[in-house]
Amino acid sequence: MTEGDGSQAPPPRRRGRPSRTEAKTGPDARTRILEAARTEFSERGYDKTSVRGIAKAAGVDAALVHHYFGTKDEVFAAAIELSFEPALVIPDILGSSTEGLGERLAGYFIGVWENPASRAPLLAIMRSAMTHEAAAKVLRVFVLRHLLDRIADQLDVPDATFRAELAASHMVGIAVLRYVIRAEPLASADPQKIIAMVGPTLQRYLTES
Amino acid sequence: MTEGDGSQAPPPRRRGRPSRTEAKTGPDARTRILEAARTEFSERGYDKTSVRGIAKAAGVDAALVHHYFGTKDEVFAAAIELSFEPALVIPDILGSSTEGLGERLAGYFIGVWENPASRAPLLAIMRSAMTHEAAAKVLRVFVLRHLLDRIADQLDVPDATFRAELAASHMVGIAVLRYVIRAEPLASADPQKIIAMVGPTLQRYLTES
Repeated sequence: MTEGDGSQAPPPRRRGRPSRTEAKTGPDARTRILEAARTEFSERGYDKTSVRGIAKAAGVDAALVHHYFGTKDEVFAAAIELSFEPALVIPDILGSSTEGLGERLAGYFIGVWENPASRAPLLAIMRSAMTHEAAAKVLRVFVLRHLLDRIADQLDVPDATFRAELAASHMVGIAVLRYVIRAEPLASADPQKIIAMVGPTLQRYLTES
Repeated sequence: MTEGDGSQAPPPRRRGRPSRTEAKTGPDARTRILEAARTEFSERGYDKTSVRGIAKAAGVDAALVHHYFGTKDEVFAAAIELSFEPALVIPDILGSSTEGLGERLAGYFIGVWENPASRAPLLAIMRSAMTHEAAAKVLRVFVLRHLLDRIADQLDVPDATFRAELAASHMVGIAVLRYVIRAEPLASADPQKIIAMVGPTLQRYLTES
């Protein structure tokens, strides 16, 4: 792994700025960039976040951000993946059997949103995607498609991707009404009560043909 | 929708509302103000719309807008009601029996969104509510609560408002993924296919205890 001061990578347009002290310690540069990106997108929104700003917050050169991720859209997609961690959780949720799948999925989703640390970036993603086509495109092309295909691959029903997206739509709508609009009674409902009601719906979409 | 025959088809465009041309000559000031408000909120978003701008677009004095509706928030709420027309459609959707209720509700909702004339203001409402707390509050306090209570009143299940909101959340999420993010395969799916899959979910929430 690089020390992350920018001089380790072969940045073609290195600006020769002095690296920050933090850059030489702690987690590797790639992780620092991703976490900085998540914070920047959360706090500023998609539109006002720049690769330069992310680089500055991570204490690295902008060229290193481009080196690791490419464009701003690609950094955005990677920052979203960091919030969901689908590679880690999808195998766990799908498990070895489809029994209880709907409830596991609802439980995971509500859990991510109940955690303030993951809620903030998710709110930022949703707000950005609702108001900026570029952010919507990232979500549509890089994130959702990938995620839905991955889940659908594990299902044994016709129209698996369509069904996975219907399940996703329900969870997205719950997030909108509970966490964004905060409409009662859903906003104050016990998470377990929501999971118990929604689990069977997701189960039906994902397993019953 | 207003025809209320419970048909699954998207609602016909025929409605009781005057055309734009008629609006300039025929209907009373109150209607003109509401339609101007809907257009202003759709085109400018919640934040940039003012009572003065609405009055100007309607060709009336701002005092008349205040006289009929009160504050900007109250005009916003009234403009939203105009898009949904809940007073007209709820009795039709609920009908005399809960049989087929889920499918009627899904059909009504998809129909409203498939119609470009109602889609534009709905998109504006959702975008505003996602990004401006004042708009979210209008939706939460004046619109959703009222709408959900009205539906829940007609249901014979425990936690009827909670269940009505779960049903609403699913439809909101479908709107987000299909019409805002435009994520495939939901974005291009046949409306009838969506209604057929979602209807039973709504039916379960609204009728099965």
